[in-house]
Amino acid sequence: MSLLRNEPKPRRPAATAVATIQDVARLAEVSVSTVSNVLNGRENRMRQETLQRVRQAIETLGFRPNQSARQLKTGHMPMLGLLVPSIANPFFGTLARWVEAAAQDRGYGVVLCNTQRDPDRELAYAQAFMAQGIRGVIVGSALQGQEHLEPMIAAGMAVLGFDRTSENTSLAMDFVSMDNRRAGTMAAEHLIALGHRRLVYVSPVLRSQNRVARLAGARAACERAGVEFVEHVAASRSQYEEGEMAEVGRSAALDLVRQGERATGWVAMNDMAGVGVLAGLHEAGLRVPDDASVVGIDDLFLGRYVSPTLSTVRQPLQAMAEAAVERVLARMNDGAGGSQQLVFMPELVQRASSAPPPASAAASSPTPRRGRR
Amino acid sequence: MSLLRNEPKPRRPAATAVATIQDVARLAEVSVSTVSNVLNGRENRMRQETLQRVRQAIETLGFRPNQSARQLKTGHMPMLGLLVPSIANPFFGTLARWVEAAAQDRGYGVVLCNTQRDPDRELAYAQAFMAQGIRGVIVGSALQGQEHLEPMIAAGMAVLGFDRTSENTSLAMDFVSMDNRRAGTMAAEHLIALGHRRLVYVSPVLRSQNRVARLAGARAACERAGVEFVEHVAASRSQYEEGEMAEVGRSAALDLVRQGERATGWVAMNDMAGVGVLAGLHEAGLRVPDDASVVGIDDLFLGRYVSPTLSTVRQPLQAMAEAAVERVLARMNDGAGGSQQLVFMPELVQRASSAPPPASAAASSPTPRRGRR
Repeated sequence: MSLLRNEPKPRRPAATAVATIQDVARLAEVSVSTVSNVLNGRENRMRQETLQRVRQAIETLGFRPNQSARQLKTGHMPMLGLLVPSIANPFFGTLARWVEAAAQDRGYGVVLCNTQRDPDRELAYAQAFMAQGIRGVIVGSALQGQEHLEPMIAAGMAVLGFDRTSENTSLAMDFVSMDNRRAGTMAAEHLIALGHRRLVYVSPVLRSQNRVARLAGARAACERAGVEFVEHVAASRSQYEEGEMAEVGRSAALDLVRQGERATGWVAMNDMAGVGVLAGLHEAGLRVPDDASVVGIDDLFLGRYVSPTLSTVRQPLQAMAEAAVERVLARMNDGAGGSQQLVFMPELVQRASSAPPPASAAASSPTPRRGRR
Repeated sequence: MSLLRNEPKPRRPAATAVATIQDVARLAEVSVSTVSNVLNGRENRMRQETLQRVRQAIETLGFRPNQSARQLKTGHMPMLGLLVPSIANPFFGTLARWVEAAAQDRGYGVVLCNTQRDPDRELAYAQAFMAQGIRGVIVGSALQGQEHLEPMIAAGMAVLGFDRTSENTSLAMDFVSMDNRRAGTMAAEHLIALGHRRLVYVSPVLRSQNRVARLAGARAACERAGVEFVEHVAASRSQYEEGEMAEVGRSAALDLVRQGERATGWVAMNDMAGVGVLAGLHEAGLRVPDDASVVGIDDLFLGRYVSPTLSTVRQPLQAMAEAAVERVLARMNDGAGGSQQLVFMPELVQRASSAPPPASAAASSPTPRRGRR
């Protein structure tokens, strides 16, 4: 469920309009994502009835998919820009994949650049995009401060901040994010409901709004439930290495257990860190979920291929990427003013890494304390 | 070790030259990668003595790093293009990360586009790059046929094919690859040396030269050693989903074991498929490495975070990315004619997923057969 669904949608007069993917979705009473999946052969998990309805709507409206295929042939493909901190982090690879699918459905290509969360690089790439005639850019992990993008916005670039809300900013840009605070709460509450009475929360340095929000959500859930909460925020690392995020989780779990930490529940700020926590607990000689449970956030595909498979809080990345592309195109093409903010709801996905704590845990729990590194 | 090291290097007259990163590397007697690591604070695994030598060379030559930082400030950053099949595959995320680091050291930004191995998309993006004033492009996973790139080359674009050799092509472009045949051989020979007498080789559809070469190398090693060799090449899949590669490995392992396959050694075409093979064997109830051993190819960071950690054949991706960037810049700036091909050697990395076969394996081995799906 997303707030997006409650928005009024502009309607075109039926007689003159060229059918869009949105029109197909509306007629078939499905999401744009579903239509996109049909157009691109991603029908695996789709009900036959839904598939039929989408195909019928495509025929009724005379919708021509694959505008982009035609444009590819002629070599004139308009472009969107996508800035990410580091494409070596598989989360951003997945985001890029969905942004590209959504852009492709609408006849656009995507150019992607790494910024390492450096405002100078964000601005330089945005300027390079401008110089190349690109008029819309999605900032894949929006910084806490957004002011460096102001010159671009003033110059007419449509800018969308991903993974951030409009909090503390008044720029004429749009925002698409998950409710990150709620995601943190859901991860913690899942472990609390299983009976865990002491949780460790593992996060990389709190450099973006979403990280702060996830931590706050988990902390609040533990406070409400009277459950012990240990925050472990890793020190800053200068590079965006491909294994950075997993290493944060691995070293946190290994160090804490070796220092005597006996929490039975572990929440990782994201799935990449969660995969690392699994590795660290394993290295420290603990069995998951027999001795300790682990929950991540994001529902990255990797969580399905580790042992045990990783419980997580799902971020609806495909729908979010589509909303982002749609919004940035609307701002580019209709010059939408003001600022819009679309917030999507997370969803718990339980897999094999979470279970009730061992029977001995309550008895052997150490003296309550609140740690922070 | 790479063939690259044996090439004659052009020397600039010392009096007039501005020092380049290559000059620093030569004076310090280290690789360009090492200098780049020093410049970017990646000094973790470096010997103190090497670090000192590089710093001394930087001082002696008056080398100014971070050209790109200056260019970023002024907003004029020249760009290179990088085309990859799917950035949702972490291998290409890692490649992109190293290409960008190498480009950044030389004052260039990188724009990245997904092509899904579609020649039309490759050409359309290359044309868009041209229109945007980008004069050099690295094709991240070069197709078997390269002819669709001919118009771009004719128009003056410097094109470098990555992960492919110049075999079966006569275009005026360059190639950087690992010796993929040798990588397949090394993976198989590692298992053979441990005592395995029957190997399964798991590969996605043979859509690129490197996949064909890896398979051929593994097959040849088994034939030489008189070891049974089962080829399992997955059927074509239409999409570049983020979990595609891991799923190829998982379903292959699960299906084969359920059909009675009793090989003790498994080679995966790459580490992503290898992570999937680990998951599939686990799901089928086999323990790795007690019941079966698994070896991947690439040395992707993920292999260090799964349980057990994945043995692999390392692809020297950083050095290869640097060679690719250097070569494409040379062709852009000096108009180098002809075609150059740089081939890098792989290296075995043994981790926890490979061990001698169980003692019972030789006795219970099924009747020899050669399978292919």
